Amino acid sequence: MQYKQWQLTSRPVGEPSRDNFELATVSLPEVGENQLAVKIHYISLDPAMRGWMNEGKSYIEPVQIGDVMRAGTVAEVIESRAEGFAVGDMVYGNFGVQEYAVVDTKGIHKVDPSLAPLPRYLGVLGMPGMTAYFGLLKTGLPKEGETVVVSGAAGAVGGVVGQIAKIKGCHVVGIAGGKEKCDYLTHELGFDAAVDYKDDDFRGKLKAACPKGVDVYFDNVGGDILDEVLTRINLHARIVICGAISQYNNTKAVKGPSNYLSLLVNRARMEGIVVFDNVKHYGEAAQEMATWLGQGKLHAKEHVVEGLETFPETLMMLFKGENFGKLVLKVNHQE
Amino acid sequence: MQYKQWQLTSRPVGEPSRDNFELATVSLPEVGENQLAVKIHYISLDPAMRGWMNEGKSYIEPVQIGDVMRAGTVAEVIESRAEGFAVGDMVYGNFGVQEYAVVDTKGIHKVDPSLAPLPRYLGVLGMPGMTAYFGLLKTGLPKEGETVVVSGAAGAVGGVVGQIAKIKGCHVVGIAGGKEKCDYLTHELGFDAAVDYKDDDFRGKLKAACPKGVDVYFDNVGGDILDEVLTRINLHARIVICGAISQYNNTKAVKGPSNYLSLLVNRARMEGIVVFDNVKHYGEAAQEMATWLGQGKLHAKEHVVEGLETFPETLMMLFKGENFGKLVLKVNHQE
Repeated sequence: MQYKQWQLTSRPVGEPSRDNFELATVSLPEVGENQLAVKIHYISLDPAMRGWMNEGKSYIEPVQIGDVMRAGTVAEVIESRAEGFAVGDMVYGNFGVQEYAVVDTKGIHKVDPSLAPLPRYLGVLGMPGMTAYFGLLKTGLPKEGETVVVSGAAGAVGGVVGQIAKIKGCHVVGIAGGKEKCDYLTHELGFDAAVDYKDDDFRGKLKAACPKGVDVYFDNVGGDILDEVLTRINLHARIVICGAISQYNNTKAVKGPSNYLSLLVNRARMEGIVVFDNVKHYGEAAQEMATWLGQGKLHAKEHVVEGLETFPETLMMLFKGENFGKLVLKVNHQE
Repeated sequence: MQYKQWQLTSRPVGEPSRDNFELATVSLPEVGENQLAVKIHYISLDPAMRGWMNEGKSYIEPVQIGDVMRAGTVAEVIESRAEGFAVGDMVYGNFGVQEYAVVDTKGIHKVDPSLAPLPRYLGVLGMPGMTAYFGLLKTGLPKEGETVVVSGAAGAVGGVVGQIAKIKGCHVVGIAGGKEKCDYLTHELGFDAAVDYKDDDFRGKLKAACPKGVDVYFDNVGGDILDEVLTRINLHARIVICGAISQYNNTKAVKGPSNYLSLLVNRARMEGIVVFDNVKHYGEAAQEMATWLGQGKLHAKEHVVEGLETFPETLMMLFKGENFGKLVLKVNHQE
């Protein structure tokens, strides 16, 4: 069977574009022993993908030139030679930006379409949800009554961070771009306040939203926003470095946080996280998240764009701040 | 009695100079109840003094314009109306850059000139020693066999950090300016390696000195050196932010660490420290440090410059990297 896949054909300098990829037609190999053939329905688009396109040492191997672009996906088993998986099962796995795949079962788990819409397994019940859960609770260590600020707050990770912080009894402030996203945070997700980073008086608005300073800052964006929050942190604040979407497409050096000496003044800590470190505890976390979803304490939003062929442009929505909730690409198969 | 004191007369922009100070002649007030009159013999000159000259919120109040410049000192009691202090006692206290002072006894402790030369109570047995001890052990958390890198390694704090790390069984690398300082680190202080940051191949030399990467980085300098070390850190590395002497006299924004996303890749931590937080435990620390000194495991070096009148220029030696060991100003009284 022939199918389409997006291959990385060159390493982007600055913003990635269609020129860095090729939509190739390839053949599905035979399904070997202990393998599955899967039909991919939903593809997760994440800021981290930008980093995977770069050469060099990171927390994960870069995607090689000519390889299918790496991505988390939800897919349907269409042929199984592996125990425990049957045709028709829906599974989560890193199957890449393509229509089909033949895969080993390592790192795959089944998902239940009757419990949640499938795209949700790429959002709050997937990597972004796990990132929010472990990053906030294990590294941010929020205490009741503390102020938690999160950037990229209308994104897949940020929205969950803020809601978990609310569940933990914190004063929660989201940073997002534009009135619509800010309204969503306060009206639909229950944030105490939201600050628009595009506002001319971002500094003043942030200060007003955090009258007791900032105890935990969960940073998804880096750049000027990180620097601004650094001026507001309290003694012993914890800054969780989850990402820096404002910097991923830089062609010059990353803008380091000029105000990092606020860490000294405030005996504060800045710490990086990678979600994969918590893989052994995903099960417990997913259970607790599902409970909160069921209780209506946690709300999820997915932003689904249709069409595998739109991949390069859809991915760029992340860096332009055009997505609203977890960005997911829906594959419409050509049969 | 009339005496001399250095007053801060304007806030420096960039490098401080003689123009920011005035050597005023003032009168010693009467000694009130529970007070002492002291004759100051040694004045500690520290990078942190630059920060105290700035306006604005920090971990300590700024020195006010017209006030005597703040400094740690070792002084002799010349009149006592406070219980527990007698004429002739030698004491440590923040008495400022001046010849004499009338002071309350809060924050003062006696020092024993028979146990160590007096300047040492401003170095390894004083704030720099405490900073090294608590910063390394409580925040750096070095484990046996790990690699510890320290910048400003020939300075008052850095030299002690490296020696304590050796005592704890670490592979210790110092960063300092020039061959003489580097030789001092390896030949006299027992560092495993020293790297000259002025070397054209600083990057390559640092890499060679840390074949197993960097587990703990104790940073006194900030700037490019911090960025360079960030490229070499290991998983779960701890970066102790003690100071950033390369940035204190900036007239532009501080250079933030462009490579801070290495914290994410390596799930590493960057944390600021202020020595005063450990004041309750100074006693235990001083005891342990004195033991190590006695056992010859810890060596101390003070760089003593004579003459209160040289204060502005002597202070600048810190920022030019001209001091070698703990910089101390010796007061020659005018009687």
